[in-house]
Amino acid sequence: MRKTKGVTEILHDPNSRGFASDNYAGVHPEVLEAIGAANGGHQVSYGADVYTARLQDVFARHFGEGVQVFPVFNGTGANVIGLQSMLPRWGAVIAASTAHINVDENGAPERVGGMKLLTVDAPDGKLTPELIDREAWGWGDEHRAQPLVVSITQSTELGTLYTVDEVRAIADHAHAHGMKLHMDGARLSNAAAALGVPFRDFTTDAGVDVLSFGGTKNGLLFGEAVVVLNPAASDGLIFLRKLNMQLASKLRFVSAQLIALLDGDLWLRSAAHANAMARRLRTSLEELVTSGAVTGLSFSQPTQSNAVFAVLPTDAANRLRETFHFYDWDASKGEVRWMASFDTTEADIDAFVAGIRSELAA
Amino acid sequence: MRKTKGVTEILHDPNSRGFASDNYAGVHPEVLEAIGAANGGHQVSYGADVYTARLQDVFARHFGEGVQVFPVFNGTGANVIGLQSMLPRWGAVIAASTAHINVDENGAPERVGGMKLLTVDAPDGKLTPELIDREAWGWGDEHRAQPLVVSITQSTELGTLYTVDEVRAIADHAHAHGMKLHMDGARLSNAAAALGVPFRDFTTDAGVDVLSFGGTKNGLLFGEAVVVLNPAASDGLIFLRKLNMQLASKLRFVSAQLIALLDGDLWLRSAAHANAMARRLRTSLEELVTSGAVTGLSFSQPTQSNAVFAVLPTDAANRLRETFHFYDWDASKGEVRWMASFDTTEADIDAFVAGIRSELAA
Amino acid sequence: MRKTKGVTEILHDPNSRGFASDNYAGVHPEVLEAIGAANGGHQVSYGADVYTARLQDVFARHFGEGVQVFPVFNGTGANVIGLQSMLPRWGAVIAASTAHINVDENGAPERVGGMKLLTVDAPDGKLTPELIDREAWGWGDEHRAQPLVVSITQSTELGTLYTVDEVRAIADHAHAHGMKLHMDGARLSNAAAALGVPFRDFTTDAGVDVLSFGGTKNGLLFGEAVVVLNPAASDGLIFLRKLNMQLASKLRFVSAQLIALLDGDLWLRSAAHANAMARRLRTSLEELVTSGAVTGLSFSQPTQSNAVFAVLPTDAANRLRETFHFYDWDASKGEVRWMASFDTTEADIDAFVAGIRSELAA
Amino acid sequence: MRKTKGVTEILHDPNSRGFASDNYAGVHPEVLEAIGAANGGHQVSYGADVYTARLQDVFARHFGEGVQVFPVFNGTGANVIGLQSMLPRWGAVIAASTAHINVDENGAPERVGGMKLLTVDAPDGKLTPELIDREAWGWGDEHRAQPLVVSITQSTELGTLYTVDEVRAIADHAHAHGMKLHMDGARLSNAAAALGVPFRDFTTDAGVDVLSFGGTKNGLLFGEAVVVLNPAASDGLIFLRKLNMQLASKLRFVSAQLIALLDGDLWLRSAAHANAMARRLRTSLEELVTSGAVTGLSFSQPTQSNAVFAVLPTDAANRLRETFHFYDWDASKGEVRWMASFDTTEADIDAFVAGIRSELAA
Repeated sequence: MRKTKGVTEILHDPNSRGFASDNYAGVHPEVLEAIGAANGGHQVSYGADVYTARLQDVFARHFGEGVQVFPVFNGTGANVIGLQSMLPRWGAVIAASTAHINVDENGAPERVGGMKLLTVDAPDGKLTPELIDREAWGWGDEHRAQPLVVSITQSTELGTLYTVDEVRAIADHAHAHGMKLHMDGARLSNAAAALGVPFRDFTTDAGVDVLSFGGTKNGLLFGEAVVVLNPAASDGLIFLRKLNMQLASKLRFVSAQLIALLDGDLWLRSAAHANAMARRLRTSLEELVTSGAVTGLSFSQPTQSNAVFAVLPTDAANRLRETFHFYDWDASKGEVRWMASFDTTEADIDAFVAGIRSELAA
Repeated sequence: MRKTKGVTEILHDPNSRGFASDNYAGVHPEVLEAIGAANGGHQVSYGADVYTARLQDVFARHFGEGVQVFPVFNGTGANVIGLQSMLPRWGAVIAASTAHINVDENGAPERVGGMKLLTVDAPDGKLTPELIDREAWGWGDEHRAQPLVVSITQSTELGTLYTVDEVRAIADHAHAHGMKLHMDGARLSNAAAALGVPFRDFTTDAGVDVLSFGGTKNGLLFGEAVVVLNPAASDGLIFLRKLNMQLASKLRFVSAQLIALLDGDLWLRSAAHANAMARRLRTSLEELVTSGAVTGLSFSQPTQSNAVFAVLPTDAANRLRETFHFYDWDASKGEVRWMASFDTTEADIDAFVAGIRSELAA
Repeated sequence: MRKTKGVTEILHDPNSRGFASDNYAGVHPEVLEAIGAANGGHQVSYGADVYTARLQDVFARHFGEGVQVFPVFNGTGANVIGLQSMLPRWGAVIAASTAHINVDENGAPERVGGMKLLTVDAPDGKLTPELIDREAWGWGDEHRAQPLVVSITQSTELGTLYTVDEVRAIADHAHAHGMKLHMDGARLSNAAAALGVPFRDFTTDAGVDVLSFGGTKNGLLFGEAVVVLNPAASDGLIFLRKLNMQLASKLRFVSAQLIALLDGDLWLRSAAHANAMARRLRTSLEELVTSGAVTGLSFSQPTQSNAVFAVLPTDAANRLRETFHFYDWDASKGEVRWMASFDTTEADIDAFVAGIRSELAA
Repeated sequence: MRKTKGVTEILHDPNSRGFASDNYAGVHPEVLEAIGAANGGHQVSYGADVYTARLQDVFARHFGEGVQVFPVFNGTGANVIGLQSMLPRWGAVIAASTAHINVDENGAPERVGGMKLLTVDAPDGKLTPELIDREAWGWGDEHRAQPLVVSITQSTELGTLYTVDEVRAIADHAHAHGMKLHMDGARLSNAAAALGVPFRDFTTDAGVDVLSFGGTKNGLLFGEAVVVLNPAASDGLIFLRKLNMQLASKLRFVSAQLIALLDGDLWLRSAAHANAMARRLRTSLEELVTSGAVTGLSFSQPTQSNAVFAVLPTDAANRLRETFHFYDWDASKGEVRWMASFDTTEADIDAFVAGIRSELAA
């Protein structure tokens, strides 16, 4: 980015988009604008600024009076410190084996958080009271890491959704056994948009105790928040955020982004759009399958938010990848994941569908 | 930040500045511009983007071929993972008792990094071979945390500077005892600007092994980097960054900011300006003291970078704080710290000097 | 234990024995004699004593020249520090989900050792190359805890045995993928006795890198040892033992016990006896089942060492427990575990068989 | 220890004793007898045995009704888990810089316990309210590890003693600031013997909250105990002991040893004897100094328990070490430490005095 006559060098193609992940996208223009608006002058660092103060009100509107918001850098940080704040040093977390905390964080929950994960296979990424019970036992036995928190992801890592009732059933079950409920909401906006209900319906009001609220995958430059929905279920987050290296000095800019997302309806516009793009992809492809226009393509998960999980021949997938970026999910099965984001366009989808059709033409 | 007719609400006074910390300042406009330029389109997340690739070249120009750069979220993260990468599980770090890693990180080096700090009192914040030797002993004794790294801060937490020769003497001493040298460079640009030499003169070429390069205090929105100057002295940073929750998904924006700082001379312009403002403050006040215009004011550290450490009556300090934000450093001695930043103006300094003069008029 | 006329009070019934665990048994008289022989006078603490020196020779005879022995307090300690010495901070361990390190150590490997366990269901408690491959992937991917060690238990937590060839196949497979092999040998003597081969055949010579050698379950008062069979596979144990609080000050007494066990054939006499008692129990009961004398009894694992895993009606099990101490293994299935130890007598077995016969009489 | 005709081989000289450490001594015969008495038959492992049950009563007699006793393997373990049970994850411990937890445990408190130590120089190893205040500040500041526990050692690592009033003053001061008081009592019996008061006078009744009670240095084979004097000040020890690998399976033998020590007066006989031997050494040498019989010898600490800290010429010290084992304390000052133990005899002392006299004859 060598400066020449005041022009910052652009190194990438700002018109290229793929289907690899919603964090391949950049920053929503309104978020960038909010960062600019929060700039200039001095603000107290580490959170005693006016934007972070305002953020409390914004979250209170969405999640209920009395919730506490702790903006952090990233989702792994939000999950680890949120969970740590819910657990004694001997605590364990029951989670689906596909949970991000189990497979994508290089052991941060264990290594940094000092907790043990008790994982259960859940084919659609969703825990149930029955699945939870496979690991919900042994309280008081000092040899067993004590299962004291259940963690679910909404929407899940497999693109599926918990209904409001399903969340409530899990919360009731957890609470009945003296366990707390944590929700990894890296894509919470996508879930809310898909469910068509306010955030609090399937979080605070459904019995979730502590939430990781995701911003980055919905158009922030960076920034997530630990949201304590039930203050009795969490302790010491102000200290845990700092000691776990998740406290930004210029915190006003994290808060300003989250305000930009949540004060108006940006969160909903962006998430609903991403969901619609995934739906468009799924529907278009299903039509091609049904009509017999393509063969060898099937779907391994329902598309309930902004992800499409598909199975197709490996060589076809690899040729497609020469043009469209996406990841294998389970290479042994030929399963891939296609993600839509806030900036995915209908034209992006249509071109991808055309590409798939061409590869898999019957 | 309720949106009204496309206008993002500004909650703070963008023209108010104080002397509390260089991280009270916001983002330099050129950095914001670089973020905007890096926006749009998709880029591979977690570091396989073109900006992060380019960043390697930028750092190589400043620090030498072969250095490795790992952008992270914040300074505590940079310090902890940099030190961890240099140490086995039984390692200890010799540092000044005033070091940021010892006093300002809520035990992150110990709790997250699993290291022990062996601290030495250093009145001006600077270690010396002699001071290091107070803790540099006991290798092979399993009862003693093994001193394997020396960590120094440049410029120090007390605003003082190591000369090139002083760094080299420490590096030689550390290496002669089988120890590595880490540098916390949260304000490295201020140091380089003050010393008037290239970065590499007092880092790579002076024998520093691993560096925390600070961006946030010099005008970034957020972003620091662990810079491995001696690849033989560090292992596993790619993993340590992730598992310690310091890997941004949209890493292109951290890298783009660092490029904006370092590709041209922004780092120098900003740091030299901050230093000059601190110098202006110090000089103006010294003149007032010398001339007898003010009484009760003295200085507890030399002003070698962008900090002024002063001693004044507590009630005067408290009245000044009603207008100008700054912190006590050691309240028991009436010692305060005044920091200048990239956006401090001459007018800011002059108004502050006038305020102090008024408070302490003889 | 109020002293009366020099007589130490005995609070328990020294003639009562059950089938709950081999660590319910006490100390073998020869071990107690060895402790007494090592007593008196002063010896350098923390391991620089003559008994610990001699211990190296004793282990070298059993496991090969060049092995390194680190006596520790208990099996959890042996496992955690042995594994830690094999792993970088980003390492993970592939283990059976039934492994003691996964289910019985309250997360010590994760919390204290900072490692992640990647577990695989193994119905008989035994890993295979195929089972290992379910988790042996993702090297170089910073998001995944790096699978760098495979840990197997010999004899397993389910009383089953790896043959020499099975161990070798796992070692070869692990090594071919750049992974090391750890063996939890809490009951290694039972395995050696059952296999009828020297220790080194299924450890050092089969490719095991680091071993936890168990003494407590085979008649020691306390004491296990981390045995480094392949010095290139382990680093820093001398420090890890201390910092993980596993270094006894009067280490001579741990070493003297291990010498008592291993210098002669005590290890073999005790282990073979325990195995034989389990075999006697199994055989007697199978005869009762075959003859139709009892009903409702079946066996859920082969009896290859000193354990019998059986399934019987819960109420019968509970009534039996009024007389004979033993544990449920999987209460949901009516599965129980019966352990024999060095001090189990034929009469103990016969009485237990009679009791079972009475409860389950057809 | 090759067995020949039933005779266990003795590898060391049971009549050789030195002055290096009280943990160079072996096991008191009455303790060994108690181990033998607790042997035979089966007892529930991991603490549900009759000896551990009885131990609660024994400690209640010494420390008051309602205290809770958790036998562990060693002193480092007792300290780390005791402190951990008193602290949240963001806690710090104020201690003398000479404290065993700071200098002799290879960072176990930090690495395993996850706590930060805030250390204060204390020339005689003793904290005071004034010294504590140097680090007792910053509560609520998330950047500072929160000082929530004060830890003192009784008798100290320098052989000095806190009086009952001094302990109480520290406890009152700590409690007044919302901090708890921990006591490292590795040599608590020596302190009680020297003070001539019951344990509870300077522990429970003086305001100590959690205690590490030391057995090993007073004649046990191994074994210490975390004693919770104030149950409101400690949480989760049952789990912390296990997950920190400090739970012996055959716990009855730890408990039986502690009963042997504390049920009668063995603790007092042994500790008073060790103290008397140190006193004899000190007095004899002081007489030689006073009379002018020796030169170059001085004392750097008062002898209040079982330690003598002396300064003498290095070459003399080294020659003495050819016959008598002891350690340098601070080699740079020629300072050495001489420890007496339960088995030190008057003849041992007299021979040592004669040796010193010979070396330092005027």
